[in-house]
Amino acid sequence: MANDPAPEISTETATDPASHPLVVFTPSGKRGRFPVGTPVLTAARQLGVDLDSVCGGRGICSKCQITPSYGEFSKHGVTVADDALTEWNKVEQRYKDKRGLIDGRRLGCQAQVQGDVVIDVPPESQVHRQVVRKRAEARDITMNPSTRLYYVEVEEPDMHKPTGDMERLIEALDAQWDLKGVKTDLHILSVLQPALRKGGWKVTVAVHLGDENHPPKIMHIWPGFYEGSIYGLAVDLGSTTIAAHLCDLKTGEVVASSGIMNPQIRFGEDLMSRVSYSMMNKGGDQEMTRAVREGMNALFTQIAAEAEIDKALIVDAVFVCNPVMHHLFLGIDPFELGQAPFALATSNALALRAVELDLNIHPAARVYLLPCIAGHVGADAAAVALSEAPDKSEDLVLVVDVGTNAEILLGNKDKVLACSSPTGPAFEGAQISSGQRAAPGAIERVEINPETKEPRFRVIGSDIWSDEDGFAAAVATTGITGICGSGIIEAIAEMRMAGLLDASGLIGSAEQTGTTRCIQDGRTNAYLLWDGSVEGGPTITVTNPDIRAIQMAKAALYSGARLLMDKFGIDTVDRVVLAGAFGAHISAKHAMVLGMIPDCVLDKVTSAGNAAGTGARIALLNTKARSEIEATVQQIEKIETAVEPRFQEHFVNASAIPNSAEPFPILNSIVTLPEANFNTGGGDGNEDGGRRRRRRRG
Amino acid sequence: MANDPAPEISTETATDPASHPLVVFTPSGKRGRFPVGTPVLTAARQLGVDLDSVCGGRGICSKCQITPSYGEFSKHGVTVADDALTEWNKVEQRYKDKRGLIDGRRLGCQAQVQGDVVIDVPPESQVHRQVVRKRAEARDITMNPSTRLYYVEVEEPDMHKPTGDMERLIEALDAQWDLKGVKTDLHILSVLQPALRKGGWKVTVAVHLGDENHPPKIMHIWPGFYEGSIYGLAVDLGSTTIAAHLCDLKTGEVVASSGIMNPQIRFGEDLMSRVSYSMMNKGGDQEMTRAVREGMNALFTQIAAEAEIDKALIVDAVFVCNPVMHHLFLGIDPFELGQAPFALATSNALALRAVELDLNIHPAARVYLLPCIAGHVGADAAAVALSEAPDKSEDLVLVVDVGTNAEILLGNKDKVLACSSPTGPAFEGAQISSGQRAAPGAIERVEINPETKEPRFRVIGSDIWSDEDGFAAAVATTGITGICGSGIIEAIAEMRMAGLLDASGLIGSAEQTGTTRCIQDGRTNAYLLWDGSVEGGPTITVTNPDIRAIQMAKAALYSGARLLMDKFGIDTVDRVVLAGAFGAHISAKHAMVLGMIPDCVLDKVTSAGNAAGTGARIALLNTKARSEIEATVQQIEKIETAVEPRFQEHFVNASAIPNSAEPFPILNSIVTLPEANFNTGGGDGNEDGGRRRRRRRG
Repeated sequence: MANDPAPEISTETATDPASHPLVVFTPSGKRGRFPVGTPVLTAARQLGVDLDSVCGGRGICSKCQITPSYGEFSKHGVTVADDALTEWNKVEQRYKDKRGLIDGRRLGCQAQVQGDVVIDVPPESQVHRQVVRKRAEARDITMNPSTRLYYVEVEEPDMHKPTGDMERLIEALDAQWDLKGVKTDLHILSVLQPALRKGGWKVTVAVHLGDENHPPKIMHIWPGFYEGSIYGLAVDLGSTTIAAHLCDLKTGEVVASSGIMNPQIRFGEDLMSRVSYSMMNKGGDQEMTRAVREGMNALFTQIAAEAEIDKALIVDAVFVCNPVMHHLFLGIDPFELGQAPFALATSNALALRAVELDLNIHPAARVYLLPCIAGHVGADAAAVALSEAPDKSEDLVLVVDVGTNAEILLGNKDKVLACSSPTGPAFEGAQISSGQRAAPGAIERVEINPETKEPRFRVIGSDIWSDEDGFAAAVATTGITGICGSGIIEAIAEMRMAGLLDASGLIGSAEQTGTTRCIQDGRTNAYLLWDGSVEGGPTITVTNPDIRAIQMAKAALYSGARLLMDKFGIDTVDRVVLAGAFGAHISAKHAMVLGMIPDCVLDKVTSAGNAAGTGARIALLNTKARSEIEATVQQIEKIETAVEPRFQEHFVNASAIPNSAEPFPILNSIVTLPEANFNTGGGDGNEDGGRRRRRRRG
Repeated sequence: MANDPAPEISTETATDPASHPLVVFTPSGKRGRFPVGTPVLTAARQLGVDLDSVCGGRGICSKCQITPSYGEFSKHGVTVADDALTEWNKVEQRYKDKRGLIDGRRLGCQAQVQGDVVIDVPPESQVHRQVVRKRAEARDITMNPSTRLYYVEVEEPDMHKPTGDMERLIEALDAQWDLKGVKTDLHILSVLQPALRKGGWKVTVAVHLGDENHPPKIMHIWPGFYEGSIYGLAVDLGSTTIAAHLCDLKTGEVVASSGIMNPQIRFGEDLMSRVSYSMMNKGGDQEMTRAVREGMNALFTQIAAEAEIDKALIVDAVFVCNPVMHHLFLGIDPFELGQAPFALATSNALALRAVELDLNIHPAARVYLLPCIAGHVGADAAAVALSEAPDKSEDLVLVVDVGTNAEILLGNKDKVLACSSPTGPAFEGAQISSGQRAAPGAIERVEINPETKEPRFRVIGSDIWSDEDGFAAAVATTGITGICGSGIIEAIAEMRMAGLLDASGLIGSAEQTGTTRCIQDGRTNAYLLWDGSVEGGPTITVTNPDIRAIQMAKAALYSGARLLMDKFGIDTVDRVVLAGAFGAHISAKHAMVLGMIPDCVLDKVTSAGNAAGTGARIALLNTKARSEIEATVQQIEKIETAVEPRFQEHFVNASAIPNSAEPFPILNSIVTLPEANFNTGGGDGNEDGGRRRRRRRG
């Protein structure tokens, strides 16, 4: 994926400069002398300059657009005269008149070299163009899709050389595009002969370029020159939602994004309950396989409609998912994943046909599933590894994909470790008394004044804090309905900082804290965040069981990370990347106060958004990235937390807020956490934290 | 396919003869010294001796049975003592007690070398065993099927090395069988985990071994050791009938053969009328595709029932057919094959999945179609070339597959030419006044006494001639219903030899011939072969239009062959092979009197039976033969008779009986053909033979 530095290839030899002008390409810097009359595209090809062409130099596709520069270029040691390229010929002029060309642009296949010239290849004319990613630390995606379009002219049949039409098409692909050993999908044979004749023996074909195990194959054929594009899907198949990006395989652009709820939810909210469903119900796994595939097809119809393209133009799809979803999508009973030793049916990447998975896109569409790292660390984690590339990081990075099951990667270019940890659904607002999914009306940001112990907050859908003017109006439509994952993190961290919560996770009473917002709640206390009862809305409190649930979740997360740090032999990490939609909304400081993540310089804690989805998109657009991540996953060292003796110890330590054993020096240099102990000797102390049975998966 | 001469591989070095006894294998002659205690199977493998094993030396499969020889072998320079092999161990003894072993046989994996020994590997213990073909001139088939069974022991899953079960199975195939880069079919993933656990981590898998374009793939899995076999189909898809052989892929044995009428007959009797049907009826080609695939499935059900095997054990199928059937079977509109330049959609061999062709055999079964040679010379002709191997012949051989369209091959190891010629259906009894398909009751052999001009004949279903005692009783059930293809050939040839028919093809009158069996029939005459009217049966005559139909057919056949001889630059061939069911019943002498085939020594004219079906069987059992015939077909020079100027001239000459231009010296040395001319100046002479519009295809 990295941009290779351009080698200074040169064919400058002892040729006569007058008859062989110098051609310098930018940005590659590649240069060489060519006979007067050489088309710019030809010169580019001979120098190995990355200049695109679909029509093979026939002035039809305009993919080879270049920008000649005129005047003096001391850097290149060349002066470019106004007549350095030929005048516009008929083909080029007709193209410009009919389709238009940006000022200064020429068609590389038509414009011929007449004198020394400097030629710029704009990004959109490069085959392996870069798809720029927004985040500063993320590397751009190099375009190298599985399937490309080729325009070819096919020899007509001859009784004396009775080869098939397909064989002559394949010969043409070899001769005109240097594509070797091309084969065909069967369905092409039914449409080949009419297409060739309708196109006057000129056709455009979509060729899947294959890999070391598969020869290139013709997937589609259009009579004449096909001006449209072909598309691919990057799909993040989650337990709760299925999200897809539809990408243009010519440009790399995302043309539509869409998502649906995973229809398997009716068989169980979380993964473990789906595994149970398949154990309890004969054929239950097949029901769930059908459901997810049907959902997938509904999503694809929806996304194609949104982009206003024909679904049959989708020729490739990449899927990332956790192991249970992976198995259910493939039609494998996830039974074995529900019990030690958590044996995957298959862990390697899979290259399949869409029809094998009952997906209604192009009849010959290909499907690629990223490899699974381990029984609990799925293809989604592999996709995060592809997107965030810890294996290419100079500094030591901890990548955490926060969900109901956290996948954790720790490493640098020398070594990468991976594990998963069963955080449960608390971070998504489940198991929380006033919890809800992140949706308008949910409290997402919380501050508590350490003096007054009074809270203020913001809800999703509004930028106004609850103590600011206009808040009531701003939330009039949505109401204040509950508290979402990031809100509960902030609330608990703020309570800890305000001295309302002790390190063991006990909320103080009104007497102990000096605020009436701490109210008795059975044998423990709760903190009143919002009393909506006056307006007939809900009363939102943070209860001690809520604290317990978050303690379990964050202790699982932290102890997984800490275990990897042990294995790596280090006590601190250089940076932390939070992946996942939830990770995108967590405040680094609050997460650290809670002890969710290891102590780290705050601005070295960043969010990668949906890194799994991004990994899927990278694998879709760049087939080289597929073999790269396959090799990387082989190298990743897998740690099974369930059988690691120190995991339990780390878990107990991490049950405290932030931690009963780790010092967190950086955190302590920013915030001072009040010493407090609200344990009155009886009742529901935190000492049960380590003993509670943890759920294996969420 | 040829039996490679065994190289004298030897590992006899300066090792101590006492501790390293000599092991000599027969029939290969391979020999070497091995440490005392070496299992015979191990010694065989190290020497590259072709000794089979499915269980990998675990004493389960008994595929490695060998026969030790004892006593003195001066030929090998070795004396074998009675204790040259170890005593029967428990495993071997248990196998013998339970399953039985032929006397003198041992299990090669259990019996260990103790002293010098001579070991015979019986044919059934060889992986690449020979399937013996009955005909003297045919080469045996070397077993090398696409799919083989392997018994493996798979490592159990380990949380600390979380590879998938499939990956560990693939590792086991590499470690235990040296199978590299094995992949899996998707459906295996759904059944893998239960199979591994049921078999106690021991399974048998069927692996399709792939080719240069496809990696080996696991197709099926059985828990534990699978004792059964797997099967393949060799299918000859003809315009009229579909015939299939079901072969055991372990032994090469044909376990059942069956045939059905091609259900496409309802769309048209001959190929051209099916092409027309598809032209006239929108979707007609698809109707015919459905019909032939449905028929195929019915046939497969029938043949599996006959062999009493599960259809799902059929993992491979090879198809041969003419180009129109080829296209219709693949779902390609045969439109282009109905008009010049007769462009095939594809001519190369095709490796497909059975599901792609809607065939209900094993869900992952593979399908192979032989290459087509040209627009009129199909995969059936390629199969004939594979079976009869003109490209490997030392002498110059003419191979003729006689059907409604004759495919003709001429060549030797230096060069092979091919063409097709539109003989039409006359050779199958169609277009003949008393003609019928070869079936009980049909006259198949005819003799006419040149003195008395009286005929005698035999009908299918009886060996008794019509002038012999018991004839009436013998034909009482079947009756005498008509005359089949071989019968009409003999009848006409006999009429010519008896002076009843002149060279131009005119039948003489009763006056001209002196027999009342020549009766007037409109403006021409007919010969009365059998008057069944007294018993209420049919009257069977050979009419002048019958003669005309046969003249057209045989002239087409001969002129095609003659054209190839021109192209080859020769006037005589060394031998003639008649392929096809019809070819099997033709008398060489009568065919030559008729001038169907070139002049040739009579015993050099042989029948190959259903050579196309045999070619399909060879390709099924020996995948190497597939690449061989693909290469051969590339080398075959194709001649399109329709555009060859001399074809017309040859056709006119060949309309005469036997020929108006060719001398037929060998024929003339055996028979004397009476000079006769029954042309009375008016009427339906033979001069129209050359002018009649010939049908392009039948």
